[in-house]
Amino acid sequence: MKFIVLAGGSGTRLWPLSRRNFPKQFLKLKLLNKNQDESFFQRTLKRIFAYPESEIFVVTNEKYKFYILAQIEELLDLSDKKSKIEIILEPAQKNTAPAIAMALKYALDKGVSRDETFLVCPSDHLIYPDEEFLNYINRADKLAKDGYIVTFGIVPNRAETGFGYIKIKEDHKDKDFYKVDKFIEKPDIETAIRYLKEGCYYWNSGLFAFNANSIIEEFQLQIPQLAELISISEESIIDYFNQLPDISIDYAVMEKTKKAVLIPMKIFWSDIGSWESLYEVTDKDENGNSINANSVNINTKNTLMIGNTRLITTIGLEDLIIVETEDALLIAKKGQSHKVKDLVNILSEKQLPQVEEHITSYRPWGSFTLLEKGLRYKIKRITVNPGASLSLQMHHHRSEHWIVVKGTAKVTIGDKEIYVHENESVYVPKSTLHRLENPGKVILEIIEVQVGEYVEEDDIKRFDDAYGRQDI
Amino acid sequence: MKFIVLAGGSGTRLWPLSRRNFPKQFLKLKLLNKNQDESFFQRTLKRIFAYPESEIFVVTNEKYKFYILAQIEELLDLSDKKSKIEIILEPAQKNTAPAIAMALKYALDKGVSRDETFLVCPSDHLIYPDEEFLNYINRADKLAKDGYIVTFGIVPNRAETGFGYIKIKEDHKDKDFYKVDKFIEKPDIETAIRYLKEGCYYWNSGLFAFNANSIIEEFQLQIPQLAELISISEESIIDYFNQLPDISIDYAVMEKTKKAVLIPMKIFWSDIGSWESLYEVTDKDENGNSINANSVNINTKNTLMIGNTRLITTIGLEDLIIVETEDALLIAKKGQSHKVKDLVNILSEKQLPQVEEHITSYRPWGSFTLLEKGLRYKIKRITVNPGASLSLQMHHHRSEHWIVVKGTAKVTIGDKEIYVHENESVYVPKSTLHRLENPGKVILEIIEVQVGEYVEEDDIKRFDDAYGRQDI
Repeated sequence: MKFIVLAGGSGTRLWPLSRRNFPKQFLKLKLLNKNQDESFFQRTLKRIFAYPESEIFVVTNEKYKFYILAQIEELLDLSDKKSKIEIILEPAQKNTAPAIAMALKYALDKGVSRDETFLVCPSDHLIYPDEEFLNYINRADKLAKDGYIVTFGIVPNRAETGFGYIKIKEDHKDKDFYKVDKFIEKPDIETAIRYLKEGCYYWNSGLFAFNANSIIEEFQLQIPQLAELISISEESIIDYFNQLPDISIDYAVMEKTKKAVLIPMKIFWSDIGSWESLYEVTDKDENGNSINANSVNINTKNTLMIGNTRLITTIGLEDLIIVETEDALLIAKKGQSHKVKDLVNILSEKQLPQVEEHITSYRPWGSFTLLEKGLRYKIKRITVNPGASLSLQMHHHRSEHWIVVKGTAKVTIGDKEIYVHENESVYVPKSTLHRLENPGKVILEIIEVQVGEYVEEDDIKRFDDAYGRQDI
Repeated sequence: MKFIVLAGGSGTRLWPLSRRNFPKQFLKLKLLNKNQDESFFQRTLKRIFAYPESEIFVVTNEKYKFYILAQIEELLDLSDKKSKIEIILEPAQKNTAPAIAMALKYALDKGVSRDETFLVCPSDHLIYPDEEFLNYINRADKLAKDGYIVTFGIVPNRAETGFGYIKIKEDHKDKDFYKVDKFIEKPDIETAIRYLKEGCYYWNSGLFAFNANSIIEEFQLQIPQLAELISISEESIIDYFNQLPDISIDYAVMEKTKKAVLIPMKIFWSDIGSWESLYEVTDKDENGNSINANSVNINTKNTLMIGNTRLITTIGLEDLIIVETEDALLIAKKGQSHKVKDLVNILSEKQLPQVEEHITSYRPWGSFTLLEKGLRYKIKRITVNPGASLSLQMHHHRSEHWIVVKGTAKVTIGDKEIYVHENESVYVPKSTLHRLENPGKVILEIIEVQVGEYVEEDDIKRFDDAYGRQDI
């Protein structure tokens, strides 16, 4: 059995924590009996690692590559190294159907058999316990081998209007799988209550299992372009992919196929699709507050509070969502956080940077954080991983003062190479070729003060270097 | 007529904007038809400037001296230079009675006649229009000359529970002054409604007028120590002042004296004693929001929002107070902001810096702002006024990297003196005498990166310098 992990989504429903360039799957949140140091993406991988000899195909987008690489690296330190992970970059951000087809093509080109079972996993959902999950996918493996396309339905424990549903055909006696009748969008509350009563409706977990042959047959029947993708040649794939429709696997295949079955899962599952649903899966204090912030609260109840460095104080609040980040603050009434979508659209129209990025941006070599922007200067904290290096570059409108506060830097300025140690500084004049490297064994941390008549990011000329990279 | 401006209060009822070391009187807020660039203290002075040849005695505390000086300087640029302002530092933070006695002593020692009328003005209240105010104090001057101690009662326009009241003796026919019956603490709402109906109750504006003789007589009768203060000798005054009771002028004199009269004022007045009362005197949008922040709001009503640099977004809020500063955030339900007092007490017990200071601190030579604190480093932006200089100093556990981003610095390091210009940097090693000066005509702005095993403020040795100052 092989695994396709969908990690290309750009969801901002948890804005301001999730941003277009740092979506939900990469967030590390403090959740019920979970390790805060793991993101949704990392938990998804660990769930799969439990499966013996798991081979994982992660489908993502160019702009998330750095996060994927960094978070996988963090994990492999802990996990047994048995799992094989391959990263597939979608040429464009399409929906789940093209992404899955792309992963399949890649796997088959790599020599995976067409009789192989594939499990498709979203990377931004919360599922536990992992062991039970493993039993369910083993069952799915058998069904997939028999040619079924397997969905996983969560047995509802409440009338939930936030999820999509799957209706089964037969009476819901306690069988271990059912024929699928139909897929249903998020219902209103009355309908959800009826679904809960009737019992033949399940939450759509977004997980699918199938063997390559049967899904390709279905592609052929429903969306032939997807089937053709499998056999398209390397060089023409990008153009071809860009032509593909923006369509989800549910619409493209699942809602139409006759092979769909459902395995009912009695397991905890949530897609954490809103701040309210996040609140549900966090620990609360005796006042129903879920507080992960440096805060002092008076008369405050049933409030979700996620903070950063700043002190958050509250008086007389109830049922609020308060999320504080370095550059943006959200205060929303519980029950209305679905409007975060509208909010993000407004910020987008206003072209506010808070929609796209956090003040800390990650790169393959490390990260940089904007600390302060003045009229003619800018201050950044830059961290460079051991052995890593930035590309050779030059700025025409600013000089840079670098002060090493941790580790040792190897700095190239013009044709000189020097080492700069903790508490030493170096000056990079305008229009001078320079490169920053960390030749050492510990993280390099420098404070960069840029001074000049123009201190925007786009005043940079990059030069192909020994590493052939142009990342920054 | 002379003026005593009380500017030593340390009110934190507008925390997190007001802090113990930056109280309300120095805040510059955007208020109805007011100039945002003026603080309550500055507006108080300008109100007095309207009076011909006004001589003003500002009583304040050592720790507010820098703000007083800076804010007076800002004002005198605008105002006619006719007004004379003298600053009196209380040896200790006592209540209003000792502060007033201290100011009196100072004025009389300076040769002001004992028949002179003094007007006592709090410096953190809002009053307008200024012209009408002038008419009232001219009337008060006459009454003071006749030996009365004059209070100013605001004619109530609502049943307000947030202010103290003064009850007059006679029926409230439309006279231009009345005998005072008694002073009354903040009433409950039922009582306040009755006061409004009965009409012989006025809001206590905290303004008083008297001539020196009569108030000193009253001191003699009620609190003889206060009378003795007037004649105490320079050298023993500090010890003597420290012995004085912590008592307000209301308790010490006004509630007991037979000479008290009240001038009814039909004028706008507020002591801005809470976030709610601030909301009252701000402009609102069509949803009743008073917004002075970089914000995007959805379904938000009757909310006061004061922001800083960060984006504040809200969804579905009503009747909230949101105040954001660089290091602290307050979110309070309207009607409960009196609990800010309790909040500040809790922060105090926890010894949180946010009670005392903002991240920007002012000094006679300029200001410094903490930008970032790491494990072994700290980053500050330092501004030095033209011609100003910091004292000679030394640190044993940190070296300092100074990068000039604006203006020109004169830097003394050991026995060397050098000039450092925009986009140049200089290094100050540990345990080395150094001084920073601005020899130029424009503000000097530098970025300081401190690096060392200990980067706290108390690692500093100051040396008496040419200026004989030890301020930092």
